[in-house]
Amino acid sequence: MAQNIYDNPEFFAGYSQLPRSIHGLDGAPEWPAVRAMLPRLARKRIVDLGCGFGWFARWARRQGAASVLGLDISENMIARAKAETSDAAIEYRISDLELLELPPASFDLAYSALAFHYIADFRRLAGMVHRSLRPGAHLVFTIEHPIYMAAAHPRWWTDEDGRKTWPVNRYSVEGERRTDWLANGVVKYHRTIGKTLNTLIGAGFAIRHVEEFAPTEAQIADNPGLEEEVERPMMLLVSAQA
Amino acid sequence: MAQNIYDNPEFFAGYSQLPRSIHGLDGAPEWPAVRAMLPRLARKRIVDLGCGFGWFARWARRQGAASVLGLDISENMIARAKAETSDAAIEYRISDLELLELPPASFDLAYSALAFHYIADFRRLAGMVHRSLRPGAHLVFTIEHPIYMAAAHPRWWTDEDGRKTWPVNRYSVEGERRTDWLANGVVKYHRTIGKTLNTLIGAGFAIRHVEEFAPTEAQIADNPGLEEEVERPMMLLVSAQA
Repeated sequence: MAQNIYDNPEFFAGYSQLPRSIHGLDGAPEWPAVRAMLPRLARKRIVDLGCGFGWFARWARRQGAASVLGLDISENMIARAKAETSDAAIEYRISDLELLELPPASFDLAYSALAFHYIADFRRLAGMVHRSLRPGAHLVFTIEHPIYMAAAHPRWWTDEDGRKTWPVNRYSVEGERRTDWLANGVVKYHRTIGKTLNTLIGAGFAIRHVEEFAPTEAQIADNPGLEEEVERPMMLLVSAQA
Repeated sequence: MAQNIYDNPEFFAGYSQLPRSIHGLDGAPEWPAVRAMLPRLARKRIVDLGCGFGWFARWARRQGAASVLGLDISENMIARAKAETSDAAIEYRISDLELLELPPASFDLAYSALAFHYIADFRRLAGMVHRSLRPGAHLVFTIEHPIYMAAAHPRWWTDEDGRKTWPVNRYSVEGERRTDWLANGVVKYHRTIGKTLNTLIGAGFAIRHVEEFAPTEAQIADNPGLEEEVERPMMLLVSAQA
């Protein structure tokens, strides 16, 4: 069973104050890059693995998606998603991705934003998701980049020129990472990029696009705090096809 | 035109003293992982892009390869490869991969070890290699890992626990990197992992396997100097299929 940190009151209070919680998809700097990786959504049956407050589900319906099944481990998040949604074609359900089983060949798109790095058994999940997709359907997901996550003490350093610099160690040591972010003892699972991609390939996916999010100059001009994301890859964005 | 650093006398003298130059494939710690990614070589027509002293070409022939065309920009390396090879099915030729054109649909395997990171225009090279392969043929190559190459000052640091730590900055700033390794001013080209994989996909390749080399415990026991390679990914190994 996955850790349900989102229902930790301290974490949930902090998470609720993030730009992506207040402003939705447009509050997430990686969203334009993710959006560009999505197939057309019209008439698609979609499952959102880690749907949070339901921003993507509602947006997908506005793009013409036939239906969205939004799944999340957090009771708090599903409760708010339900409260903010009035759409019979969107269903929200509390679900632990570590244990989830979906019906076979049932979806045209599986989407997941910043959830899979909480999952210990990615092989099981990738296989299950592949079986739940129709042939040719897409899986588009984002995770914390393994370079962001690998080090024992992941925090900015400064190099001899004063440039912000990210430390990497333990990169090939896969497995649990405990960090303090919004709350103490948040559990994530580090996997190399190779392991993530090979697990998808082994599950039957074809890799279509791999992107390491970096802000555009326009984004940095709007939000100078994003400039540091040029220095190190914070998020990995993947599109794969069943 | 690519920089021909291998014909710089200082660089060549240093390179000739590396374990992989003295002991060949078995002197390269990544070789067992690369070898596991190769298809069967029997009756294959192979092109080796950056063949160096010809170790791989001779090994491939011992595995039953039909022929090997070994290409390298370095006159020194091609001269030594020719001097050490007596096999009518191996041809060595001086060639700049930045300008190379190969005949279409002519090879069953393209192999390249630690050469593509010297190439500025990887898109051109990937497209040309794809056209030179028969359908279903493989491209297996290694490059310096972009995490190894990105930083302005790529050298070991120590974290607060005394652990060897690798600095990352400028990750999303692609392009030229000048380093001093064996000689001053060695020119390499940094690309994100995403860019490398998407360029292959765009050229028509299917990604089959992606591996970030890490030494095994047995390798570390034999050669304790390899232990630091657990901390940061030094090499990226890719198998793709045309």
